[in-house]
Amino acid sequence: MNALNIAEHMNTMGLQAKTASAQVARAPAAIKKRALLALAQLLRGNLPVLLDASQRDLERAAQAGLDGPLLDRLKLTPGIIETVALGCEQLAAMPDIIGEIIGLKQQPSGIRVGQMRVPIGVFGMIYESRPNVTIEAASLAIKSGNACILRGGSEAIESNKALAALVQQALAESGLPPDAVQLVHTTDRAAVGCLIAMPQYVDVIIPRGGKGLIERISRDAKVPVIKHLDGNCHVYVDDPCDIAMAVRIADNAKTQKYSPCNATEGLLVARGVADAFLPEIAAVYAEKGVEMRCDSAAAHILRALPAIDSIAKTANIVLASEQDWYEEYLAPIISIKVVDGLDEAIAHINHYSSHHTDAIITRDHMHAQRFLREVDSASVMVNASTRFADGFEFGLGAEIGISTDKFHARGPVGIEGLTSLKYVVLGDGEVRS
Amino acid sequence: MNALNIAEHMNTMGLQAKTASAQVARAPAAIKKRALLALAQLLRGNLPVLLDASQRDLERAAQAGLDGPLLDRLKLTPGIIETVALGCEQLAAMPDIIGEIIGLKQQPSGIRVGQMRVPIGVFGMIYESRPNVTIEAASLAIKSGNACILRGGSEAIESNKALAALVQQALAESGLPPDAVQLVHTTDRAAVGCLIAMPQYVDVIIPRGGKGLIERISRDAKVPVIKHLDGNCHVYVDDPCDIAMAVRIADNAKTQKYSPCNATEGLLVARGVADAFLPEIAAVYAEKGVEMRCDSAAAHILRALPAIDSIAKTANIVLASEQDWYEEYLAPIISIKVVDGLDEAIAHINHYSSHHTDAIITRDHMHAQRFLREVDSASVMVNASTRFADGFEFGLGAEIGISTDKFHARGPVGIEGLTSLKYVVLGDGEVRS
Repeated sequence: MNALNIAEHMNTMGLQAKTASAQVARAPAAIKKRALLALAQLLRGNLPVLLDASQRDLERAAQAGLDGPLLDRLKLTPGIIETVALGCEQLAAMPDIIGEIIGLKQQPSGIRVGQMRVPIGVFGMIYESRPNVTIEAASLAIKSGNACILRGGSEAIESNKALAALVQQALAESGLPPDAVQLVHTTDRAAVGCLIAMPQYVDVIIPRGGKGLIERISRDAKVPVIKHLDGNCHVYVDDPCDIAMAVRIADNAKTQKYSPCNATEGLLVARGVADAFLPEIAAVYAEKGVEMRCDSAAAHILRALPAIDSIAKTANIVLASEQDWYEEYLAPIISIKVVDGLDEAIAHINHYSSHHTDAIITRDHMHAQRFLREVDSASVMVNASTRFADGFEFGLGAEIGISTDKFHARGPVGIEGLTSLKYVVLGDGEVRS
Repeated sequence: MNALNIAEHMNTMGLQAKTASAQVARAPAAIKKRALLALAQLLRGNLPVLLDASQRDLERAAQAGLDGPLLDRLKLTPGIIETVALGCEQLAAMPDIIGEIIGLKQQPSGIRVGQMRVPIGVFGMIYESRPNVTIEAASLAIKSGNACILRGGSEAIESNKALAALVQQALAESGLPPDAVQLVHTTDRAAVGCLIAMPQYVDVIIPRGGKGLIERISRDAKVPVIKHLDGNCHVYVDDPCDIAMAVRIADNAKTQKYSPCNATEGLLVARGVADAFLPEIAAVYAEKGVEMRCDSAAAHILRALPAIDSIAKTANIVLASEQDWYEEYLAPIISIKVVDGLDEAIAHINHYSSHHTDAIITRDHMHAQRFLREVDSASVMVNASTRFADGFEFGLGAEIGISTDKFHARGPVGIEGLTSLKYVVLGDGEVRS
């Protein structure tokens, strides 16, 4: 397709999505549930078709010279398909929040005023390699009563087409419009440019992928973007605290997995507990080969240890640069800084963090309260690992992304983030005087 | 100031607002209350100063050739000042919602997860003539724990300066940073361009004024905009309905005031009640000099009336053009269309309305439920006048604008619309496994 054809094609998809969105918005909960259960069954029943499509993607990717981890992310396996099928069934089992009315109260004029939860309308989702996102996004769209237009990575196009065909079949079998979930078939980049600039059809864009992709989309989009840029998360070890708990959490938050956005990248330690805490956590990190980028105070404590020789064997204790405080390593590296106390910890986090997730380990009630209130991040935690910042762990039942913005959805975004509240007024003939 | 100086100046204001916002965000409710009460007292105690400043604005405006209604909007009177002082006291008396935690629930891992309401941070407000908006915006900022930068119309600059000085005095006297509310003193338009493009300092822009201003700002802003474009509101008279109630509401919704955005501009009438309803409402509108722009069915009914001659004397019954269905008249004009029933009414509204406020007058429960759910507007009403769509009538206690967007705040925006919800996690040493 040339640019003009792509624009026309995307315009048609937009109009179809908009039309379908009105139907899916008013669909009864039972119909949406039926579609999700049908989708789960279709996924399980079409395993050979899906694995076949995935194989074609993998072969093309291998020819194009993609390497191990990228191929891994691209691959559909029976295990992955079972996981997304289970996800559909879990969504089906969740309560339907569309149409709920909250806070209905009578006003002095006699009218009763409340807010009804309704779908946003149409969302556009732009994502990279992993094809399972196609099903995650489609099932969230169905449950939340939205239509969606999906634009997956070109390397996964065969898998995505096969998955999207099953979604449309499930919709049709359940009496919902297949256009409620449309996949962009062309891999031309111009299609993304069109998708993010159709405010008449698309209400919100959700990009998932690298920072470059998300920055580009946020800059060019003509509609709101639910975006998640990066996760520079912190653990602050306060004075007083349970040192054993602090070690357990600082260990888990950094090393349980290095790649997620909610892994901790910066460790702040109150001066009063630094001598007790730092050697213990350093031993754990050294054991696991985590590089420690320290400010001079932390480096001084660690280098003065009698055990420094054995630590130094397996880990680097190096001096941090200013840039380190900003860094999202997503790797076995952590920055460590000794701070005077709560005030400096909060100031450091609010300055350097990406406003994703930050935790305090403390025994002091007032410190905990101040940290919760004053740290300006999407998720703030007391005595828990930053790794918990996740839609499933937070009880949302699903997650379409994590927002580090303050506007609309903030933190893990589940079904509620794909809805809006409109005012409903119930009167008995009242007029304004 | 030249462009470079203005950019520098706005940057300084932005930094100051950001710094102040952290302080006002954590201010106790009692301090914010004290500041609002101090402001009310200062407004009353400085009446001569304020009237003097207003006089200077009026003289300059008269010299510039501004006419009656514009001068009226510009003028500060003892009555207006008393009204805004009372508004400050009402806000002071309202509960403080900053810091409230909602939905705290334990999750399977043991962590407890809830959401805390926090200020958005810094908002920029851009508005035209009426100087009382300065106090409304400032008092809402204080109550909601936000900082703000205010850019009023150049014609009201003297009034705005005098008012803003009192706000800063009230802040200082109460122990809050005066920079929490800053007025842009330069009337150069370049200042607006800077204000809407400082995502590092300003979290959201709220424009209030003409459609042109709001469209321009929405197009150029680099931060989210809480915007209200226009109010093409409808009353749909359903079959069956209480005809007397329908007449009372259709009258009030159109004629109680012509200029507000929640005044009704389009009247839809179900065919089954058209013969009974249209002559009655036409008599009311004719009496009040409201021009009726009718589709052919409505015109046919009205022109066939025996009383048509007397009606025609005081009112025009003319045929509507396609453009009329889109129009926000803000004048004694209404479009009238006969529809087959609920489906056509909903389809018409969702196509032509500005998604502001739409009402159904009905006796049918299922029709009411479908209208509430399927009409895609910020406020949907049953058996009540569209004129109720207002922050005060909805019980919000204040209103900084009405949003016709679906993202973040929708409908009348009060204190809640200036806040965001962040996740709080209370743990007892939990780690992720």
